[in-house]
Amino acid sequence: MTTFPCSIQDLPTPCLLLRRSRLVANCRKMAARMAEKGVGLRPHLKTAKSIDVARIATAGHSGAITVSTLAELEYFAKHGVDDILYAVGIIPHKLNRIAEVARSGTKVLCITDSASLIPVLNAKADALGITLNLMVEIDVGGLRGGLSDDDEVLAVAREISEADHLSFMGVMTHAGQSYAGPDLDHIESVAEDERQGLVSIAKHVEQQGLVCQIVSGGSTPTATHGKTFEGLTEMRPGVYTFQDLDQYGLQSCGLDDIVVSVLTSIVGHNPRADRILTDAGGLALSKDLAAKKFLDHTGYGWIADTDGNLNEDRLYVAEVHQEHGLLASPNGSVDPEKLPIGSLITVLPNHICMTAAAYDGYYVVEEDGRVSEFWPRVNGW
Amino acid sequence: MTTFPCSIQDLPTPCLLLRRSRLVANCRKMAARMAEKGVGLRPHLKTAKSIDVARIATAGHSGAITVSTLAELEYFAKHGVDDILYAVGIIPHKLNRIAEVARSGTKVLCITDSASLIPVLNAKADALGITLNLMVEIDVGGLRGGLSDDDEVLAVAREISEADHLSFMGVMTHAGQSYAGPDLDHIESVAEDERQGLVSIAKHVEQQGLVCQIVSGGSTPTATHGKTFEGLTEMRPGVYTFQDLDQYGLQSCGLDDIVVSVLTSIVGHNPRADRILTDAGGLALSKDLAAKKFLDHTGYGWIADTDGNLNEDRLYVAEVHQEHGLLASPNGSVDPEKLPIGSLITVLPNHICMTAAAYDGYYVVEEDGRVSEFWPRVNGW
Repeated sequence: MTTFPCSIQDLPTPCLLLRRSRLVANCRKMAARMAEKGVGLRPHLKTAKSIDVARIATAGHSGAITVSTLAELEYFAKHGVDDILYAVGIIPHKLNRIAEVARSGTKVLCITDSASLIPVLNAKADALGITLNLMVEIDVGGLRGGLSDDDEVLAVAREISEADHLSFMGVMTHAGQSYAGPDLDHIESVAEDERQGLVSIAKHVEQQGLVCQIVSGGSTPTATHGKTFEGLTEMRPGVYTFQDLDQYGLQSCGLDDIVVSVLTSIVGHNPRADRILTDAGGLALSKDLAAKKFLDHTGYGWIADTDGNLNEDRLYVAEVHQEHGLLASPNGSVDPEKLPIGSLITVLPNHICMTAAAYDGYYVVEEDGRVSEFWPRVNGW
Repeated sequence: MTTFPCSIQDLPTPCLLLRRSRLVANCRKMAARMAEKGVGLRPHLKTAKSIDVARIATAGHSGAITVSTLAELEYFAKHGVDDILYAVGIIPHKLNRIAEVARSGTKVLCITDSASLIPVLNAKADALGITLNLMVEIDVGGLRGGLSDDDEVLAVAREISEADHLSFMGVMTHAGQSYAGPDLDHIESVAEDERQGLVSIAKHVEQQGLVCQIVSGGSTPTATHGKTFEGLTEMRPGVYTFQDLDQYGLQSCGLDDIVVSVLTSIVGHNPRADRILTDAGGLALSKDLAAKKFLDHTGYGWIADTDGNLNEDRLYVAEVHQEHGLLASPNGSVDPEKLPIGSLITVLPNHICMTAAAYDGYYVVEEDGRVSEFWPRVNGW
């Protein structure tokens, strides 16, 4: 077991390093932006899955959060978060676990876009002795879940309102198309589509006498670049807490805003293949290649030193096997002497939501480079 | 908590289903093949990471296994496995944990391809009070780790033999290029290259008076298709235990040999995008796309029913978000009525080593379709 404080050199590899001051800065910046724009912040904790991060991310706002799994819902409720939106379309089978959390006093919000499901959800909520809070999911162009037709939304909202054991809470969307960036004009315009789409549907519903307590949008690109959020009650960005190479490519952050990196050991040199081998492979990094859309030679991540400074030869993880990462140089040969076997480097991840999921927590690094504590994550479902 | 036995309908989603009879059949077949060919089987447990699977996979052979992480090493040793090869190049920092396992009575084998590391490993083994068993890693064309030159191998072997606290055990390789298939002639020829490469290097080393107790090859394709293993003492295939779409594409197995699938719920329909939504997304399936090399319309996996029968419309997971999978049809539109919200399907995974890593274990399904027990996995490092 690791005892704290300790040095980065003492940690097992691969593991996740979390730079506290960057996390706090990212969270403060987003919280301040949302406050300044007059909109609430309900951070999505699917990225961090950590109560320690949730406490920092919710500072200055209501304390409400968003989650993507029932495991997260249960974990955050147990740790005292009292207002949680579960942002994946609800199905009846999942109400058993939802009801347990709701009964413990946590406000749980669920989402649906299906009129045909309402009677089933109502019957199940009745059987479980709860009132289920439901929002209608809207599609503003992401083409994942949600309805886009005003009257279809109204029909579902009305069904919910009229059901004895359901409570209509409002509308929500996720403008996933904001990730198609990196043109800032494009992201701004997606943010405006997201806002207008939600506001106009909310108005249509309210004109029929139904109250949208919550009008909820959000993604890191739209929350970062949207000009106005008028008419929305809250935004739900998530990855801004940690940032990553994908967000850097999308111009949502700078490289120095990337909070979490993968600490890895050099475990071999292969001069015949012109590769340096590390112990962070496909499981330790994930096979997400999102960052290559907007950046060159990203592979499975860019290499930095243990202080987070980008490698001078711009080495990157060119290939992965399950437990091996193979480093290459975009500008010529790798020089094994610069990275002896046993030395430590870090990998800036392509998509931290995917990468972090392989680990049971984060080693927290302070500004002086010392490791102060370990923050657990809640993985699985 | 789930109580057993139960029905597949009672399980949370997403989760892993493991069909016991298929696992037993795959393991028996490989064990029998290796026995018939006169070579030992040291199955690689990086795929299953489960002691329950290890017990089945080692039946009929010595009980020795291969692992890819120190977490696996510690877990399997704790569960009584007494001969374990850690198949990632060893570095001095990791000897602390290796030594603890070795002191508990488990035979631990490590690998290296670095002459310069030998004095450091020797000093550290001395400090820890152990004799470290070392094999030399050979590269027979996979271009990952390992040496390919006879005299370089001999030099490392000799350094190990002459060190007071190291013990030279033999040579090993992993012919990763066997995954470039799917031509069976190609795989057969890689298997023969792997065998000949190892045997000729082992002979070279032994001619100098050093004994190779172990001459170890292995990958699922080469173990499945190699004609002879003469001169090898053991093979180390791993994914054959479970099989997957990648192995199916490589002709290492049939679809009915795939042991583990992802149980997922239908959570939505999006007729505008012609997609059906499930709760198995990028985390539940992994973002590995290996299977597309040799098969069409694989996406992130093929859809089957809960009995494992391939979907009649050949639906596949066309897109993933973190917690959403989007199903499409290769032959036209999807029909939402065939898969109502709340119904259950399974996903045949592209690359089960990657997919399984997101879960803490397997729900074991018997031939009558009942779920009999839960087998935990050891994840992380």
